[in-house]
Amino acid sequence: MIQKVSHIGIAVKSIEEASRLYTQVLGLKIAGIETVPDQKVKIAVIPVGEVRIELLEPTDPEGPVGKHIASRGEGLHHIALQVDDIRAELAHLQHNDVPLVDKAPRVGGGQALIAFLHPKATKALVELTQPAP
Amino acid sequence: MIQKVSHIGIAVKSIEEASRLYTQVLGLKIAGIETVPDQKVKIAVIPVGEVRIELLEPTDPEGPVGKHIASRGEGLHHIALQVDDIRAELAHLQHNDVPLVDKAPRVGGGQALIAFLHPKATKALVELTQPAP
Repeated sequence: MIQKVSHIGIAVKSIEEASRLYTQVLGLKIAGIETVPDQKVKIAVIPVGEVRIELLEPTDPEGPVGKHIASRGEGLHHIALQVDDIRAELAHLQHNDVPLVDKAPRVGGGQALIAFLHPKATKALVELTQPAP
Repeated sequence: MIQKVSHIGIAVKSIEEASRLYTQVLGLKIAGIETVPDQKVKIAVIPVGEVRIELLEPTDPEGPVGKHIASRGEGLHHIALQVDDIRAELAHLQHNDVPLVDKAPRVGGGQALIAFLHPKATKALVELTQPAP
């Protein structure tokens, strides 16, 4: 079951530059910065209510966020929906012939289990995420 | 002050087609559909926790969402941050030389007051919104 929007990922060239507006002007705070080697990305987490804005800075131009910036520039990259049971959700999606990027969950930021749906059906890049227990 | 993420706008060619996955497969519900003539868009509102996913279908290819789809395809269009006092927020942003699309608020969906920031500073298209009282 979908519980809430977990986060909104924004692809940026530089966390240092992009975060200035969100923190110094809009008054939000960076809760932490972490690197996810599997996604070739450094993530600055900015909580806003029950959601997090995540600024995604590529650590490698060949990673998914690096390629996104090269082809489409900086901007909204994906949204993540928090689920209680990601394996059950992926099985349900496959049963309904929904195209998936990840048929099995991987480990993402904060040790959450994550899987991306294919934007063909969702129209936007949508990630499912099940927080670490 | 920023209170929460109000909504995430996804540009789609057809609400009917795009909503199928969100409702029939993911189990979310459309709370309402409304047309905003000023934005040349029809909006399907899908609540998820304290946030709304808004599917944005152009009513005119020359409107902002129609142009977005023509140049970049369907996909994430903007995020909206809910504030308690949009005029004070816009004055604060202008005082800090943040580039704005709208220097004064306009009336958006649900009679909210809305204003867009320029993506140059925010990296993504960000709307401020103050709900109708």
